[in-house]
Amino acid sequence: MPTILIDHQPVPIESIYGDVQPIAIRPIGHVVEVGSADGSGNSSKTSKIQLLPAMARFMSGLEEETSVLVLWYFDRAASVESVFPRGWDGKRVGPFASRTPHRLTPIGATEVELLEVRGTTLLVRGLEAFEGTPVLDIKVTMQSLREGGRRSTDRRRGGQGDAGSV
Amino acid sequence: MPTILIDHQPVPIESIYGDVQPIAIRPIGHVVEVGSADGSGNSSKTSKIQLLPAMARFMSGLEEETSVLVLWYFDRAASVESVFPRGWDGKRVGPFASRTPHRLTPIGATEVELLEVRGTTLLVRGLEAFEGTPVLDIKVTMQSLREGGRRSTDRRRGGQGDAGSV
Repeated sequence: MPTILIDHQPVPIESIYGDVQPIAIRPIGHVVEVGSADGSGNSSKTSKIQLLPAMARFMSGLEEETSVLVLWYFDRAASVESVFPRGWDGKRVGPFASRTPHRLTPIGATEVELLEVRGTTLLVRGLEAFEGTPVLDIKVTMQSLREGGRRSTDRRRGGQGDAGSV
Repeated sequence: MPTILIDHQPVPIESIYGDVQPIAIRPIGHVVEVGSADGSGNSSKTSKIQLLPAMARFMSGLEEETSVLVLWYFDRAASVESVFPRGWDGKRVGPFASRTPHRLTPIGATEVELLEVRGTTLLVRGLEAFEGTPVLDIKVTMQSLREGGRRSTDRRRGGQGDAGSV
């Protein structure tokens, strides 16, 4: 019987999910290279994401975005803790009130800086994922959407520019 | 041979993904009720999310969050368009430079207002998903993390409060 580790005990998947059937998700690429931090902590690391060759067809306009939301798969997830001290404030919470990778659905969602797009390779800053991590999706950020997709140069100037300026 | 609709043509999955194996993701609940808009457009709709009974164990502290990131599954996705005019600015882009539900990995990521948590039922505002939509994950928002999990009442006051105030 397939199990999942919860609070370090194997628990039958069926006792958690009942008869809910799994959905099949295919990675669109992988993290192939993780740079070193440049002095300001983990979030400033650069990472290279290599998308599958067939993804080229779906990348129009991506090079004009300056930040993206990356969905990725925690493929090294361990036991799911039902309550633990949350990283940034030490408050004791469950996985749904946290960003822990040790969660029932091990999908990470991280907004990263998009530094470069070359073919199907993306160079990003701020992705906290190991080399080899499967990447599930790339989306524009909600912030980018709200700002009408203005370039970061405009944002740095603090300009308000309207959505039609893209 | 399993196919996927791209630009309205069936394309063999293998020609997109090669030998990349799918990952099995299990929904943790569903959207069970969608309220009507309250005058300010689609994003102001309330939705009820019913999590599976076993999820109660993982919800500690969730009721103290005022916004959450919901990952959900576009189970009514149609043909993936490789280039199309993006919703908010009309720019012609591919799915990776958009938030379209018609994408290779049909997972939505939406930050919503968390209005109420009662048992394993969440009442949220701002989720643009149909009734019956599978919900894959609930996370605290990056904004909540950055603000140290301060309550929205504090945010409305514009207080800066430190992370230790939670």
